[in-house]
Amino acid sequence: MNSPPYKWTATRALELLRNDSISVEAYAQSLLGRIQERDRTIKAWAHLDPELVLSQARLLDKIPIENRGPLHGLAIGIKDIMDTKEYGSRIYDGHQPSADSHAVATLRAAGALIFGKTTTTEFAVANYGPWTANPHNPKHTPGGSSSGSAAAVADFQVPLSLGSQTGGSVIRPASYTGVFAMKPTFGAISTEGQKPCAPSFDTIGFFARSIEDLRLLADVFGLKDDEAPKETSLDQISVAVIKTPFWSSAGYGTESAMDNSISVLERNKVKVEEVSFPAEVSDSKVLGRIQDVIIQSEARVSLLPEYRLSKAKLGYEVRDIVKNKSNITQEELRDAYDEYAKMRVIINDLAKKYDVILAPSAVDHAPVGLDDMGSPIFNTLWTGFHMPVINIPSSSGAWGMPIGVSLVAPRFQDQQLLQTGKAISEILMADGTRRSQDAEGLWKRSWDTDCISE
Amino acid sequence: MNSPPYKWTATRALELLRNDSISVEAYAQSLLGRIQERDRTIKAWAHLDPELVLSQARLLDKIPIENRGPLHGLAIGIKDIMDTKEYGSRIYDGHQPSADSHAVATLRAAGALIFGKTTTTEFAVANYGPWTANPHNPKHTPGGSSSGSAAAVADFQVPLSLGSQTGGSVIRPASYTGVFAMKPTFGAISTEGQKPCAPSFDTIGFFARSIEDLRLLADVFGLKDDEAPKETSLDQISVAVIKTPFWSSAGYGTESAMDNSISVLERNKVKVEEVSFPAEVSDSKVLGRIQDVIIQSEARVSLLPEYRLSKAKLGYEVRDIVKNKSNITQEELRDAYDEYAKMRVIINDLAKKYDVILAPSAVDHAPVGLDDMGSPIFNTLWTGFHMPVINIPSSSGAWGMPIGVSLVAPRFQDQQLLQTGKAISEILMADGTRRSQDAEGLWKRSWDTDCISE
Repeated sequence: MNSPPYKWTATRALELLRNDSISVEAYAQSLLGRIQERDRTIKAWAHLDPELVLSQARLLDKIPIENRGPLHGLAIGIKDIMDTKEYGSRIYDGHQPSADSHAVATLRAAGALIFGKTTTTEFAVANYGPWTANPHNPKHTPGGSSSGSAAAVADFQVPLSLGSQTGGSVIRPASYTGVFAMKPTFGAISTEGQKPCAPSFDTIGFFARSIEDLRLLADVFGLKDDEAPKETSLDQISVAVIKTPFWSSAGYGTESAMDNSISVLERNKVKVEEVSFPAEVSDSKVLGRIQDVIIQSEARVSLLPEYRLSKAKLGYEVRDIVKNKSNITQEELRDAYDEYAKMRVIINDLAKKYDVILAPSAVDHAPVGLDDMGSPIFNTLWTGFHMPVINIPSSSGAWGMPIGVSLVAPRFQDQQLLQTGKAISEILMADGTRRSQDAEGLWKRSWDTDCISE
Repeated sequence: MNSPPYKWTATRALELLRNDSISVEAYAQSLLGRIQERDRTIKAWAHLDPELVLSQARLLDKIPIENRGPLHGLAIGIKDIMDTKEYGSRIYDGHQPSADSHAVATLRAAGALIFGKTTTTEFAVANYGPWTANPHNPKHTPGGSSSGSAAAVADFQVPLSLGSQTGGSVIRPASYTGVFAMKPTFGAISTEGQKPCAPSFDTIGFFARSIEDLRLLADVFGLKDDEAPKETSLDQISVAVIKTPFWSSAGYGTESAMDNSISVLERNKVKVEEVSFPAEVSDSKVLGRIQDVIIQSEARVSLLPEYRLSKAKLGYEVRDIVKNKSNITQEELRDAYDEYAKMRVIINDLAKKYDVILAPSAVDHAPVGLDDMGSPIFNTLWTGFHMPVINIPSSSGAWGMPIGVSLVAPRFQDQQLLQTGKAISEILMADGTRRSQDAEGLWKRSWDTDCISE
């Protein structure tokens, strides 16, 4: 209880908020103080109104203890493509929605304190965007497109945030900023009220600083397996290491993170087996092209009215997609859908033979500089296969920048993934290769200023 | 030019509007006059503000001829689940959205006159709802859930309207009300800004009184085949008659409509072949259950926040879905997705062997009475297979009530479907069995008052 409230995990804060050990207002004040101190460097917020936050906090404080919701008073940042004042695009400047998105309404109904809107790239599509910095070193990007949601949680500005992933916009920034994140099974959380990009890939995910905190949100969103998750001893867990057909893209940091994770698992008697995708899914060019065809074709439909209404205000990447500059045919799209549906079954069947898959979360640590938000190449396949993924911020690479690994489970086994992920993350996080924290549990940093981006 | 403007097809009206033969205001006045005369009987509108319509019309009249959009001044009714003042549910009373849905924005950018919101059932889910009447006989339902959109076009209150189809909410009411309608390939029009029901089935469609009018909207929404549609002589067209595994549900009216269509086609030298689904897709119970599992599971996610926020205001059908009263497991859902994806490929491959499929549009003519909006059993399969469908209002059944037939094409061949559909509809409509129109081209009716509902 000696650490300042802004450093608490959501689970810790919730306990103290629900029994009135701290008021929501005092908790919010602590977070606002942290943000005030750090915002000029991190720039994680697209929209944040401290007065509005505090007035909402005071309303929550009036709720009697017995009526408090499962997220009572917990501060949550919302990616600025969800039911937002603006979409991160100039077209929507001044747009003030009249209702919460589905996900925000669910959080609010559970008593959460909606803190503000976090930064994102244009329509979560482009690979350039806000000037948000990585809290571990502001010369580096936090990744995109859920840039602000990852940075705000990593920087102890809020304990929880919502993001969305079409390619790798949740898991990758989590890896870059050293936080936990979850992308549930596709379709488990409605994307209503969120600007769509590629509807058969778009998935809402969330960031936190512990597995327990991820579970808080998984429960509120009603994620439920057919069977209650089982706790298993480490020597009963089987892990498939799947480096994916894109492994040749991995940098030294990711290679080390994977190698190190494997040896930690083996040292702890976890059954580890390196597994390759079967032949039908093993050609990285075919797989990559199928994903591109579907995402770009769906994005073309999603962005048509913005193009018709205000072409000139759109970035060139968005315009190229709507103009179908890569000349994708409808036949190619139809075949991509059908081929991908087959792959989804094959990979899910493969996953069912193990408790969990260990896979890379990103190509390497967060890139340096303005014009590179990094590549989603290790994430898009799991998103499109509709399988749940969590990022474990287990390792660090060059300059002490964080590098995570992904744990992946069969579709609709979200809660079991959290359960198994907790056991595995404990041994991975306990390992010495993880970057050190300072005495107060904050990341050691070397400050400068900088920027971003999917 | 002697018929009153409200009777014109959209194509006719567009020609006269674009060259200033009639002002948008005068055109709108004619439609408003028709509505005023008929609204107490038909009740097709959930929200219509004549002053707002006329002020928008006057703005459109100020646009110079050379700058007019492809839908300049055309009146369009919008189903009340799209970016609406209310969703047809009491929960949303007073909700006034701040932006157009994607589809409405596209229409408005093309110069359309957004006329008002048409009635629908609760969240387009339940099988009860507004008190909208079938213009052919107000004792009968117009069908649901796009009740008002179908009725308004059938009753000459607007020439065009938007609807949406999860099961059979566009094609079925078109069949019941004797109008043309199109449900394009899944995903061709973004559903952003529309209350979702089952996102892997939800498809925007439209109603009109001619194939040319359907094509106006298809073009504005950017529907495009890989190859330009080909005009074919009747004796070169091959039609697969597919009565579907649900054929035992067909009533006498639908049996006659199908038989009659087949003989008209044969008389006109069209190649007709009766075709069954292959074994993997031929079990009506399996197919029906798979569709139920997916739609109900997705609707459960879509409606979760409404349930959390205001359970008591929801109808029992909606509550049962959110509570998963039919005990659908996640495993069953996953298997349903995978099995259905395989069926989608099988049926598309089958469709590719013919120019077009002829199939039933509804079980029979529109049911009589308050508590039956009819069954979508002949529509849901094509919706889930993601194939484009048009309804041809070719026949009439008992009491002279209309009965349509469906033309279905392979995915992404929407424009070719319209082209082939035009040739086929001309011979079907020319046939004498279609119900007669009176001297002014209005349907003969026997009035009463009545009500409705998917």
